Amino acid sequence: MANTCQSCESCEAGLENYCSKIVFTYNSRDRDGTVTCGGYSDMVVVNQHFVIRFPDGMPLDRGAPLLCAGITVYTPMKYHGLNEPGKRIGVIGLGGLGHVAVKFAKAFGMRVTVISTSPEKREEAMEKLGADDFVVSSDAGQMKAAKGTMHGIINTASASMSMYPYLALLKPQGKMILLGLPEKPLQISAFSLVAGGKTLAGSCMGSIKDTQEMMDFAAKHELTADVEVVGADDVNDALERLAKGEVRYRFVIDISNTLATA
Amino acid sequence: MANTCQSCESCEAGLENYCSKIVFTYNSRDRDGTVTCGGYSDMVVVNQHFVIRFPDGMPLDRGAPLLCAGITVYTPMKYHGLNEPGKRIGVIGLGGLGHVAVKFAKAFGMRVTVISTSPEKREEAMEKLGADDFVVSSDAGQMKAAKGTMHGIINTASASMSMYPYLALLKPQGKMILLGLPEKPLQISAFSLVAGGKTLAGSCMGSIKDTQEMMDFAAKHELTADVEVVGADDVNDALERLAKGEVRYRFVIDISNTLATA
Repeated sequence: MANTCQSCESCEAGLENYCSKIVFTYNSRDRDGTVTCGGYSDMVVVNQHFVIRFPDGMPLDRGAPLLCAGITVYTPMKYHGLNEPGKRIGVIGLGGLGHVAVKFAKAFGMRVTVISTSPEKREEAMEKLGADDFVVSSDAGQMKAAKGTMHGIINTASASMSMYPYLALLKPQGKMILLGLPEKPLQISAFSLVAGGKTLAGSCMGSIKDTQEMMDFAAKHELTADVEVVGADDVNDALERLAKGEVRYRFVIDISNTLATA
Repeated sequence: MANTCQSCESCEAGLENYCSKIVFTYNSRDRDGTVTCGGYSDMVVVNQHFVIRFPDGMPLDRGAPLLCAGITVYTPMKYHGLNEPGKRIGVIGLGGLGHVAVKFAKAFGMRVTVISTSPEKREEAMEKLGADDFVVSSDAGQMKAAKGTMHGIINTASASMSMYPYLALLKPQGKMILLGLPEKPLQISAFSLVAGGKTLAGSCMGSIKDTQEMMDFAAKHELTADVEVVGADDVNDALERLAKGEVRYRFVIDISNTLATA
């Protein structure tokens, strides 16, 4: 976010991300009437409250996506107590958000299960990202074995799917955090929440204070996103590949071709 | 509940109500193979762990329903921080659970809005039960005026309905607690949870420790359920009236005609 009102109840509670007058970094109408251009800008002017200190030693390219994907997964993990060593957490979907969720959960000392529709992601999840377990969601036997084992699930999927089998993976009082925005409404059986006292919660970005805290935590744990750097001339190709899911896991645009010398 | 395993993770965490081997007080298969008869019994044998001390001075008839309706609303209010003075809470549905939810919320010092489909319940809600506000859910103007005003909502409705307009009543990070069990799945737009970082949580009864705490709290605040006492001979009539919603708010069966002399 590039600006908020800084005077409403959300802003005063340090929850600028839920201000109703929020100006997003990208594709939002700013106070002067211009449209914000986010990562396509080569410079921005922003109120000092919305500036994050980039930690020394963190590579610019691998660190940049944390300002979105990182804070998006860090905030609900902190807010819902899914950041405690030894707790078990599931991550649905291994994309831009999911791969960072696995890294933060491991940095918190949790036991991480990646839940995916793609069996071929097992090696990547376990050997490269350090997940402890891998469950193929279409495999009824694997899903049954994982039933009732998780304190929380970070759900990054943006496809519409039945929540029932995933909510069943939670322990009593377990929490599923929604980060994706499927087009169709979710179908939720009230029983699947009531019977185990379970929670389904949404979360959107995070506060400025938490964003700084997240960046400092990431630097301390040498945690960065997996990225592919492209030049400004390659943006159209990158968008096409993004639509096909052909990126591991975030494109970073080197707008001024300066990263090599940064 | 009449018994649980007392050794699983839920039981050891003091969450007997989520034990997978729970024996319910009513219509459950007990360890000896018999079926539990709940409030239709004139005596029960039960493990001492599951006995609650009935507070001195609390009337037996008006206190009995708290052991179900009371703990059902008290637990999520406590667990989700919806028991803090000055916070605003909505109660959807003014029946057996709803009327007790209003009373506990007022005892916690909260500002309570009853949300109902029935305009004719306004006087009852505000003058008899002490609610601060009343919103008719079919009145778009009233619903709009109440938008974003509530820290939490206790949803006791068991009819299937769209959650969207009710979730809109919550402030950012607000929580809706589901207690009813509509037959059809709920339709939840992910956006309505994600955009404000909101929570939809289920809850089922409560632990033995919390049940005792709730009874003691109720006694201290002279809080009881509104009941109509019927004799054992009147049970069939009472069930018919219950199906029509013709009770304010709980029937209590005086199985042995002893209440008059208790």
